[in-house]
Amino acid sequence: MKNPLRVDEMLNPHVSVDCVVLGFDGEHLKVLLVKQTGHEESGYYNNMKLPGSLIYNDEDLDEAAQRVLYELTGLNELHLIQFRAFGSKNRTNNPKDIKWLERFHQLNQKVERIVTITYLTMVKIDKKLTHLSDRYEACWTDIDALCPLAFDHNQIIGEALWFVRQYVQTQPAALFDLLPKRFTAAELRTLYETIYDRKFDVRNFHKRIAQMKYVLPLEEFQTGVAHRAARYYKFDRKLYNKLHGMGKSFSPDEHNEIY
Amino acid sequence: MKNPLRVDEMLNPHVSVDCVVLGFDGEHLKVLLVKQTGHEESGYYNNMKLPGSLIYNDEDLDEAAQRVLYELTGLNELHLIQFRAFGSKNRTNNPKDIKWLERFHQLNQKVERIVTITYLTMVKIDKKLTHLSDRYEACWTDIDALCPLAFDHNQIIGEALWFVRQYVQTQPAALFDLLPKRFTAAELRTLYETIYDRKFDVRNFHKRIAQMKYVLPLEEFQTGVAHRAARYYKFDRKLYNKLHGMGKSFSPDEHNEIY
Repeated sequence: MKNPLRVDEMLNPHVSVDCVVLGFDGEHLKVLLVKQTGHEESGYYNNMKLPGSLIYNDEDLDEAAQRVLYELTGLNELHLIQFRAFGSKNRTNNPKDIKWLERFHQLNQKVERIVTITYLTMVKIDKKLTHLSDRYEACWTDIDALCPLAFDHNQIIGEALWFVRQYVQTQPAALFDLLPKRFTAAELRTLYETIYDRKFDVRNFHKRIAQMKYVLPLEEFQTGVAHRAARYYKFDRKLYNKLHGMGKSFSPDEHNEIY
Repeated sequence: MKNPLRVDEMLNPHVSVDCVVLGFDGEHLKVLLVKQTGHEESGYYNNMKLPGSLIYNDEDLDEAAQRVLYELTGLNELHLIQFRAFGSKNRTNNPKDIKWLERFHQLNQKVERIVTITYLTMVKIDKKLTHLSDRYEACWTDIDALCPLAFDHNQIIGEALWFVRQYVQTQPAALFDLLPKRFTAAELRTLYETIYDRKFDVRNFHKRIAQMKYVLPLEEFQTGVAHRAARYYKFDRKLYNKLHGMGKSFSPDEHNEIY
């Protein structure tokens, strides 16, 4: 070894998981937040944060992420994608966050630094889920209208969005996890516009839907709307898997056509 | 909070970084490994492992990854991509790995569990790099011919390959980081075949190269070869950035054409 390592000060931090649960209400992209409540000299505070927790000695990372979502939001058996570790020494700079954490976990030891492993999941905001989030006082917040959150959770959500943009390019099925079982072309376009933060031409987008072989038009139409009733579509997962299943390897032919 | 958390046993592990440095010698995909040497009752052992280290108290994760590569292989200023955290409680099952680590870092405390954050980088195996890896006793090993490595490093390399396959679909420029400045069509095809673990038809692949606008044919040809001298090509990064730069947002038109 040419450069002997320093023998002091090896990091022995706490490790946590934090979950970014994304939903879509037909107009806006939403993220599921939980409360971070406590008292300070200046009085009672009520901040918001991502669902998260330190992990237990006997727990694997993925297990911890599933547990925390179940404990804090009632959600379970979700497809969680690990997307990044955040370990900056600045992420625990706010003493309020540390005090809250020590109290929340009833820790006897001091918390100095926390490396957090983040997970992402995309869900349909349906009745069952709304009921659950009510019970757990978890709330869906517009991703464009976030207040300052605990720790570096604003930054984590920003990176989650960046990750989603990359992810859906190779796994477009993930987008349909955000939509109801049947959806209109306008809803699908709005979702694309939200994810990519840009407008798409309505007519061109219709043509594109026609080319997405796994998006099938239904003989069902909106009812009780003032404007012309729009057709519903559905995502056919079986067909999608057949066309672009995990087993299929990518070919440079397909690759090149992206551009 | 409806489900109070257990107050015992919050994990307080060590945190490390491990780096998967991939190279390509024109025929095989290679990974850079360093030695893990020591004594056991059964005698001297000489295993291989990924370049890695516990992180220091004053270090951010990305800094630690850059430091360890410099200290163990002499490489610096590489573009490192964080790709996953590994934190299974089984990853430190082998007492030999733990003993080695405690001795290597001259630790006074016991190491029980280590969460490692992994980084990936793709490099050209050129003369300078060969010289460096000689000096540091780091060695390039065929990714198809790996012995059992320390900790869960075989699994980490497997996941790195999976990650690369996804990554180059949205960031194809990364593939050219593995190639010399000028390369033949056969070398590019072999690289694709290695990454995707399948064969590509030679004629079709030539057509595809012609469609990759950022791959330019040169008026230079192989010399001193027994077979017909092949033409060299180069990757034009400026043109690539202009066509598909980071700033460009993705459109569903492009998206759809992948399939």
